Amino acid sequence: MDLTGLNWVAAVEAARMIREGVVTSVQLVEACLARVREVDAAVQAWAFLDPEHALAQARAADELRMSGQPTGPLHGVPVGLKDIIDTADMPTENGSVLHAGRTPSRDASVASLLRAAGAVIMGKTVTTEFATRTPGKTRNPHNPAYTPGGSSSGSAAAVAAGMVPLALGSQTTGSTIRPASYCGVYGFKPTHGLIPRHGMFQLSRTLDHVGLFARAIEDVALLLETLAAYDDRDGDSRPRARVPYRDVAAAEPPLPPMFGFVKTSLWDRVDADAREAFGELVASLGDRVEEVVLAVPTDEVLELQRAIGGAEIAINLRREWDKGREKLSPALQARIEHGRQVRAVDYLVALSQIPQLNDSLTELFEQRYDAILTPAAFGTAPAGLESTGDPAFCALWTLCGVPALSVPLMQGANDLPLGVQLVGARHRDGQLLRTARWLVDHVAR
Amino acid sequence: MDLTGLNWVAAVEAARMIREGVVTSVQLVEACLARVREVDAAVQAWAFLDPEHALAQARAADELRMSGQPTGPLHGVPVGLKDIIDTADMPTENGSVLHAGRTPSRDASVASLLRAAGAVIMGKTVTTEFATRTPGKTRNPHNPAYTPGGSSSGSAAAVAAGMVPLALGSQTTGSTIRPASYCGVYGFKPTHGLIPRHGMFQLSRTLDHVGLFARAIEDVALLLETLAAYDDRDGDSRPRARVPYRDVAAAEPPLPPMFGFVKTSLWDRVDADAREAFGELVASLGDRVEEVVLAVPTDEVLELQRAIGGAEIAINLRREWDKGREKLSPALQARIEHGRQVRAVDYLVALSQIPQLNDSLTELFEQRYDAILTPAAFGTAPAGLESTGDPAFCALWTLCGVPALSVPLMQGANDLPLGVQLVGARHRDGQLLRTARWLVDHVAR
Repeated sequence: MDLTGLNWVAAVEAARMIREGVVTSVQLVEACLARVREVDAAVQAWAFLDPEHALAQARAADELRMSGQPTGPLHGVPVGLKDIIDTADMPTENGSVLHAGRTPSRDASVASLLRAAGAVIMGKTVTTEFATRTPGKTRNPHNPAYTPGGSSSGSAAAVAAGMVPLALGSQTTGSTIRPASYCGVYGFKPTHGLIPRHGMFQLSRTLDHVGLFARAIEDVALLLETLAAYDDRDGDSRPRARVPYRDVAAAEPPLPPMFGFVKTSLWDRVDADAREAFGELVASLGDRVEEVVLAVPTDEVLELQRAIGGAEIAINLRREWDKGREKLSPALQARIEHGRQVRAVDYLVALSQIPQLNDSLTELFEQRYDAILTPAAFGTAPAGLESTGDPAFCALWTLCGVPALSVPLMQGANDLPLGVQLVGARHRDGQLLRTARWLVDHVAR
Repeated sequence: MDLTGLNWVAAVEAARMIREGVVTSVQLVEACLARVREVDAAVQAWAFLDPEHALAQARAADELRMSGQPTGPLHGVPVGLKDIIDTADMPTENGSVLHAGRTPSRDASVASLLRAAGAVIMGKTVTTEFATRTPGKTRNPHNPAYTPGGSSSGSAAAVAAGMVPLALGSQTTGSTIRPASYCGVYGFKPTHGLIPRHGMFQLSRTLDHVGLFARAIEDVALLLETLAAYDDRDGDSRPRARVPYRDVAAAEPPLPPMFGFVKTSLWDRVDADAREAFGELVASLGDRVEEVVLAVPTDEVLELQRAIGGAEIAINLRREWDKGREKLSPALQARIEHGRQVRAVDYLVALSQIPQLNDSLTELFEQRYDAILTPAAFGTAPAGLESTGDPAFCALWTLCGVPALSVPLMQGANDLPLGVQLVGARHRDGQLLRTARWLVDHVAR
């Protein structure tokens, strides 16, 4: 059998092939490892990857399947984990020399959920320094002279380069949506609290989300269905009814969806090629799209995000600050310095705005729009590796904890990919994926 | 039938008498109103009391019972509510001229739960200014020259004076335990989040608790059973299995309970008569009590409480501060001024200590002690009405959100009552009441 391109097969399809004995997990993982050998010297997506350990998991998965025992929905499928997600069998260094050699004794909730679903934990993907702005070594797989975005740099790049079909990252401002847009893959930040964060490096309890990367919407839905779970070790996790996200995402929308196009005051700073691409997309949607002006000024949103994120980063990095601040990047030092000055009243006032912001969004979603359509970033990936790009287009949706998806629909400057960000109502994650599928089909027509 | 003293009958007994038709709710409420006429000119426990409105509720309760419809566990029993608890049919002024004439459109969760159980909402009891330290008009029912304590001044005094069998208050530092001790009634602060606080004036989300006042442990258990409920409008409420608190509290302990006597570094400041009374109580317990020294210094606890309470009070009173700070008492102005200076990192560090403090308490409870025994206050009620007394003995238990009960066991200086504070493990509220019953029986022997 010709196994060429097996590394490019979507996770849903790969899982089916393994389940039906068309291929083995070992073959799939070997195909992915071959791709790593081929491209990773240039991309550098991995913080830790032990081929033998990945293959051992694949062999165990194949043996389990052949023994006739029940298997999970991701049985034998390799997944990359951002190196802020604890794993009992691999180091987790959080992108900092301060945590070099750190080897957690337990899996994070999401790692356990993936293993329970049968996944092979392929390795740990590069994160920026503590999932903030100071870049790691990863390069954009479309052109190594460009940033892959961050902070989930390695996860986005590894999926985009065909080294794994799925990867997990995180998002505290724009750490999933932005690299997904720059690398040309799907990046999904589900509703806040839906996927438990226990065992991940906490930057900001209020803003941290688990992020999902895949090359197909069905794969995003499968991953979400695997990971949406109650875990009382995450203070923002709540018991909820199980949602069949794959079925919801696959269903036809009852009516063609209606999009609200949100430019925000940032629009003038968007690259010309991106503005043009959005113009064409909006034109193609005809009467299914309307421009919407949000009630809240973007400057104010960024200010709230800064107060909350600043204070919470300062507290979550206080040990590192106390013991080894000279080993933090100057940018992170400055951010902590700022965060330490935030007054508790301002922090609490900022927190108290979140439900109000959500109320205004809820109205939009309930009254008219299936999804908000807005840039994922200011354009394609910026040149150079000094910056991971500006996450400002993601700040409001992260602050509100609403689901957001970067859809790799367009192409922009320098032949680089350009994502479209779709945003949905809280806890309508499945419906957002369904709307995204409609949009992709519409554009393909 | 002789109805003399009906106002002194415990709630459990009164509810039984009404259920069985021995007395009517109107008779009970009239007996309580007669007591109000008799003593309230001196005590001044009520912020709002419309006898006609109370009697109308009692008449409705009697009619419902006679119609043969099912009735709740508090059917026809009058309850006083601290005037920070919203009621749709009475004003709620939060002890401040800034909220004079405020008439909420909806009942607080606890008011709804009481009505659903058939209770008559007797009226609103006096609170200090926004449930902080600046006293209201209420006097100690045992001697009007002394403070009743606060901030739930009217609730403690009304129950102690026989004007109602039950009342609700709140506790953010020592606002239930302290007035209960000074007035000689049971005051119970259940586990944080167990009773939903929606519709009550919020001073501090982290520290606010609903407080219960009664003259019998069975009544505390009945009230707790009525009010322990999940309400997603309180961010700290969680779905939990229903606990039959009355049965748990009434059961015999499997073994005679073991008490840990906690003096803390505050002990030297305790009044001589109170130290003597505690000495006798501890001696009478023999080998059922041991002195325990807590790992955490009290000064540190008070500092944490100040950082959290200060910041949260500043945010919750920010509108009053912005619009009418000159109408706040100088003491509250100073407290808000301090709270506004608290840095977010210090606030968040303080919050992060709470689980650690709880871990150390959990060890004590799991390894050896059924309850901690400690003063409720520094002694009997202080003379004068300028101060509601010092809540320092309550700070740690409030911060940790563990259940605490003031038991009116002793007598101290000036022939005033002196409570014993019992503290239990989180969510072992019923067991704490059971332990308290054992202690009361033991002392009575």
